[in-house]
Amino acid sequence: MVREKWRLVRDGIEKEIATGAWQPGDRLPTEPELALRYGTGRHSVRRAISELAREGSVSVEQGRGTFVETGPMLEYAIGTRTRLHRNLMSQGVEVSGDLLGAERVPAAGRVARALRLIEGAPVIESRRITYADRLPISFGTSWRSAERFPDFATRRDVIGSTTETYRSYGIDDYLRAETTLHSRLARPDEAKMLRQHPQTPVMVIRAIDQTLDGMPLSFSEVIWSAVRVKFTMANEKD
Amino acid sequence: MVREKWRLVRDGIEKEIATGAWQPGDRLPTEPELALRYGTGRHSVRRAISELAREGSVSVEQGRGTFVETGPMLEYAIGTRTRLHRNLMSQGVEVSGDLLGAERVPAAGRVARALRLIEGAPVIESRRITYADRLPISFGTSWRSAERFPDFATRRDVIGSTTETYRSYGIDDYLRAETTLHSRLARPDEAKMLRQHPQTPVMVIRAIDQTLDGMPLSFSEVIWSAVRVKFTMANEKD
Repeated sequence: MVREKWRLVRDGIEKEIATGAWQPGDRLPTEPELALRYGTGRHSVRRAISELAREGSVSVEQGRGTFVETGPMLEYAIGTRTRLHRNLMSQGVEVSGDLLGAERVPAAGRVARALRLIEGAPVIESRRITYADRLPISFGTSWRSAERFPDFATRRDVIGSTTETYRSYGIDDYLRAETTLHSRLARPDEAKMLRQHPQTPVMVIRAIDQTLDGMPLSFSEVIWSAVRVKFTMANEKD
Repeated sequence: MVREKWRLVRDGIEKEIATGAWQPGDRLPTEPELALRYGTGRHSVRRAISELAREGSVSVEQGRGTFVETGPMLEYAIGTRTRLHRNLMSQGVEVSGDLLGAERVPAAGRVARALRLIEGAPVIESRRITYADRLPISFGTSWRSAERFPDFATRRDVIGSTTETYRSYGIDDYLRAETTLHSRLARPDEAKMLRQHPQTPVMVIRAIDQTLDGMPLSFSEVIWSAVRVKFTMANEKD
């Protein structure tokens, strides 16, 4: 199978990045240098670079050159003890967030099942956005029993931490019981919200948090920027 | 803020799907019915449906109607005891795979670090593709010490299971030590390999498998179809 020349250039550049020979933030050699290096014409080099730029591996800055992208930079550890702040702050990132809204609604089927409520029972649906160093990294919706946690969203907004807010209700600890993750293209509104290119993916995490004895506390669906975040799953032993 | 009418239709349909009122495989009401239901023109209905189709929530089948997509159907549990076959076969799916190739190469930086070998030490780089019910769900590359596992790929191909192949080398059990997951658009070759639309994402999982006493066995990078697979992370207690 004869591979097109631009693919050879793309694969070559990718390999340099993958092996760390060219590090995030590095400037790539110039077009003529790359053409010489891979023994191709400049047309193949341009095609390779435009492909790599589309995939997010490099970014072309007019007049400055082509740079190795930092890629999904933030590592977010998911597991049974997922805690937003501990997670990101150890990476030297300033985490902040905003409450976008909260309202009392009847629990729809999926929400009711997750929270083990009867369908239509009152729940508080709250929406939050999270920033790392002022760039949005995720936004999402969570649902909690309106009877048990009537003012969770506003308390959370004042207290600044989910763990501490649960404590204010007398819940000292909680675990992530069930998590599913999938990925799809960002919808236009989502791309705008996360300030990422429209033709880039998001990761969707649905999770149930529960007390140590298994009572569901919240059901959430969070849309994560796939451009800025990668997940790690550690071998948890706790 | 006035929302455009087509967005109201899209959000309305999405809500029906999200709450399970309209189930995967269901046929949507016709265009005139939807226009009546949401009090809009057929143009808005068409725009909403075309948007939902682009996002993969519904699929339009010429002459038959519009159907709720099944979405990422297969649930793949990731954790410290990730086992391909056990994982998918419990869902009634027939799993098969092919060895695409294996060769002896010098370990590049990333591979050497993961396997705790010196850079340039000989490793076997093997490539496999995995099918569920004959549709490709993932393909990937793994690296193992050539000294320790000179013929792992061919043995694995004959034996049919990674766990059993390790047993044939006297390794009774292994754990997934470190896993990272990110998502990006499929590259054209990947989309073709996975038989999915080019403008759809893949999920990339990099993992190290190790023995119970911490010796690295393999480093792998697997490209998963985000169209066919969603991941679940169970609360593992083992």
